[in-house]
Amino acid sequence: MTIAPIKKMRVRIIKVIAILVIVLNVLVLYYMWGALRNFRNDSTDLPNGNMKSGKSVPLPIVGDNLFHTLIEEKVTVVIRKFEHFENDVTGTVESFLSLLPNIQIVIVSDFLPYPPINLRTSNYSIGRVKMINLQLRLTSSNSERNPLLHVHTRYILFVPDSTRITSVRTLHSMLIELQKQPQNIVSAALSSTKFVDCFKINTSIREWFIQYSTIDGDVCDAVKGKQVLLVDTKTIKKLPEAFMLPFPDAFYIQTAVQNIKVKLIHDTDFTDGKLLFQTNHAQLKLQQLEQERQQRMFQQFGLKKVVRETGVTEWYGCNRDTPRCFGTVVGDMPQYLWEGKWTPPCCLAGLRRTARHVFARLDEAGVRYWLEGGSLLGAMRGADILPWDYDVDVGIYRDDIVHCSWLARARIQPVTDHEGFVWEKASEGDFFRVQFSRLNHLHVDLFPFYQRNGTMTKDTWFPTHKQDREFPEYFLHPMSSIEFVGRHVPAPNNIRDFLELKFGKGSIENPEYPDPSKMKFSPKEKIHSSKAGTEN
Amino acid sequence: MTIAPIKKMRVRIIKVIAILVIVLNVLVLYYMWGALRNFRNDSTDLPNGNMKSGKSVPLPIVGDNLFHTLIEEKVTVVIRKFEHFENDVTGTVESFLSLLPNIQIVIVSDFLPYPPINLRTSNYSIGRVKMINLQLRLTSSNSERNPLLHVHTRYILFVPDSTRITSVRTLHSMLIELQKQPQNIVSAALSSTKFVDCFKINTSIREWFIQYSTIDGDVCDAVKGKQVLLVDTKTIKKLPEAFMLPFPDAFYIQTAVQNIKVKLIHDTDFTDGKLLFQTNHAQLKLQQLEQERQQRMFQQFGLKKVVRETGVTEWYGCNRDTPRCFGTVVGDMPQYLWEGKWTPPCCLAGLRRTARHVFARLDEAGVRYWLEGGSLLGAMRGADILPWDYDVDVGIYRDDIVHCSWLARARIQPVTDHEGFVWEKASEGDFFRVQFSRLNHLHVDLFPFYQRNGTMTKDTWFPTHKQDREFPEYFLHPMSSIEFVGRHVPAPNNIRDFLELKFGKGSIENPEYPDPSKMKFSPKEKIHSSKAGTEN
Repeated sequence: MTIAPIKKMRVRIIKVIAILVIVLNVLVLYYMWGALRNFRNDSTDLPNGNMKSGKSVPLPIVGDNLFHTLIEEKVTVVIRKFEHFENDVTGTVESFLSLLPNIQIVIVSDFLPYPPINLRTSNYSIGRVKMINLQLRLTSSNSERNPLLHVHTRYILFVPDSTRITSVRTLHSMLIELQKQPQNIVSAALSSTKFVDCFKINTSIREWFIQYSTIDGDVCDAVKGKQVLLVDTKTIKKLPEAFMLPFPDAFYIQTAVQNIKVKLIHDTDFTDGKLLFQTNHAQLKLQQLEQERQQRMFQQFGLKKVVRETGVTEWYGCNRDTPRCFGTVVGDMPQYLWEGKWTPPCCLAGLRRTARHVFARLDEAGVRYWLEGGSLLGAMRGADILPWDYDVDVGIYRDDIVHCSWLARARIQPVTDHEGFVWEKASEGDFFRVQFSRLNHLHVDLFPFYQRNGTMTKDTWFPTHKQDREFPEYFLHPMSSIEFVGRHVPAPNNIRDFLELKFGKGSIENPEYPDPSKMKFSPKEKIHSSKAGTEN
Repeated sequence: MTIAPIKKMRVRIIKVIAILVIVLNVLVLYYMWGALRNFRNDSTDLPNGNMKSGKSVPLPIVGDNLFHTLIEEKVTVVIRKFEHFENDVTGTVESFLSLLPNIQIVIVSDFLPYPPINLRTSNYSIGRVKMINLQLRLTSSNSERNPLLHVHTRYILFVPDSTRITSVRTLHSMLIELQKQPQNIVSAALSSTKFVDCFKINTSIREWFIQYSTIDGDVCDAVKGKQVLLVDTKTIKKLPEAFMLPFPDAFYIQTAVQNIKVKLIHDTDFTDGKLLFQTNHAQLKLQQLEQERQQRMFQQFGLKKVVRETGVTEWYGCNRDTPRCFGTVVGDMPQYLWEGKWTPPCCLAGLRRTARHVFARLDEAGVRYWLEGGSLLGAMRGADILPWDYDVDVGIYRDDIVHCSWLARARIQPVTDHEGFVWEKASEGDFFRVQFSRLNHLHVDLFPFYQRNGTMTKDTWFPTHKQDREFPEYFLHPMSSIEFVGRHVPAPNNIRDFLELKFGKGSIENPEYPDPSKMKFSPKEKIHSSKAGTEN
């Protein structure tokens, strides 16, 4: 029988073919899928004249029209920075549409612009122009108010109000720059803008602090002045609130925190549109709005101390006429520690000022006093309050209370001294408290000690504070002195032994948070020991 | 040659097989894809004991364990309503985890709870418990702060603080209810809660208005009292701000606007946990927080007039001691019209009050006056100010100005009368303006007319107001009177002719916005003509 082997062979062939077909089929599907994906991703590569980076493969040079189409597909123009009361949004939109008729334009505003922006006068297609009103409204869902859900392109071009685009040349260069460093930002100064500075931004979120400094060069953290920004939409999605006003100031703080750099391009073909804010009244209105936005921004970002490139320091935290920045401390661990932060700088400044005032009054009255607890520890470590501490602790001789009229009066009822500090008996026990002001309850605690059988003791103890304990009187005979909050302050002699008696061995070298059982101090947390006395 | 046909046949067979294989292959892939999709959607059907609706196919009864697993897969518990200063979140979380050890729990708070909520004391797995802090922080992206991006289940169960779950029986019934009406909400009252009311909510966003009324039955717009809520995650995504405080009050306003109903279930196995807010101090603190949240909520939702189920009206808009709710009107079209709204009810109330005051003073002084323009039109249509109008217009005889001391004094400089209304000459021309108060610039305009050759004329005209025109004196001889803002006010005789002279034929029957070229009045916009005089 020869038919059987032939049949078998046939069957085998058919099987092999079937398997091959399936494999091919799968491969084709896979390839198509991949191709589809690539089509979406890769077509972002742009015609590239002078690329140096080896990462991208240079594409053939394409005609101008094709390049315009590419931009229209890849870039959404976002207009965020404009004033409702006077603007040139219509002119800006028209300029972009005249050059790039199919580009998507998204206008983002905190509330519906009033007077309304009339886009209907435009000669160009406005079908691709969208107004996004960020204001909460009962009639629109959360996502409708999210500008990012209205952007479907790979890149966003932030355009300031009253801008004209004269050619796509700069946009071309910007796209090439961004392809080299896709995680960064490319900023194009307007051709009219003479002074565009590149800034370095230092932030310490833990210390509620931001510092600007001017640097040379064209790669930095922030650019000031009228500018057009090109950013990858992915970058925007990583930010806490990319569209926050004032724009782009708020934007640059967010990108700087993520170490996103900006590359500045000069000599661009973006030019100025209509002249705005020519009257005094408009200028004033603009300034006031910008100031309000700045203040809101720093508050929302938790930046309470701002050092400008000029060296000027601005404060956005509490002051003498406001309540202090943090509420009642529970379990020795203030709220800010749980948020990963240290004492707000405005509070440290207020504490220093209160401490210096108290020391001066005690000195005048001849009250014997010494630094206690965490304050003495802070003095030993860095001549300052511990960077996470929330009060200042001072020991005094109980017998000396009578010498200080403020303390004597505070025994009966709280009293505000000539400089506005409030002296009172603490409600928690037999000790005194001097507050920064009637409103701001930052304070210095004064613990009255007395001698018994060679031991310094007192009547109120905090059972949870293991450092709150008696000590031999000889630590105060004689007293020493130590630098603290910008002056010399009396301290026990042999401070190291005194502190190790209270806090345990090695406490000076090994920082700990107030309750180490709740939060460990990580050795990585570097402490900037800035000299304290220079600021109030 | 017999080989050729065989070969041909073979080739044909192979071709046919190949095509079949491809077709089969595609079918299998398509089927698998469909199956995958169905698996995702259909597996939400739950074991179903007493279902009446014919829509879902009853599933076989499954064991308790399987049901627990189903709940754990389908439901995320969200704890939104709790106070930082005193709560039982730990106990609530533990109760759910003890019954449903693998359920996802998301705790949502406006800022990091302080004192911190210690979930580590829990005896159960806390790996599935997440804390979402809504506060803007420089260190977290926008999406990290979005609770919905942390919910991966089809349903959300909102659980109030201090709740215990004693069995999954109620949850079972709730899921069955929700399957019947997936677009709605199911609310389970806590077993301890005696008074759980079902409310109807009427909102008119255009009129900045919300009204609550109690209804019988267990399907309504909002439920008051301690309750557990089950909602489809899709429903949540349609809302403007589902997690807004106070919860669930803010939630129900949003769902009511979308006509989402709530089904109330009694006799549940959700019970109370720890007793909270037992001290006076805690009660006061809670009340204050809730009040602040309510106020913020109504403001954010643009609801300025709230009528409670008790009939009590609360106002959240402007009043005499605040600036009015809208800014300078540009091009006759106030901002609120562009937002799709009419005059805020607080402003209408303020205008009515100012108008009544002005009428009374003019009556006292014997000044001859009559309703003018839009105010007369409003009086004809509904005895009230037009619902989108922003001032009241009155004509007076110029010769009578001297009779009214307030007008006479206002000619020289603005003057505040004994009841706090401000009389002044308008800056825009030769007419008078009486403002609600020094701060709130809602106003009545008084236009001085004089007779010339049988025609009433004046010196200042608004070129853009076509209704601002001269008219024959005989309209004022004799005067008639018309009901307006709760009293009778002098008006020209033959009001219809007077209005049609000014506004054109048919103007009484066909409402128009101030500038019809900018915004057409749609005949669908029904006007609730509520009698005005009853409220101030």
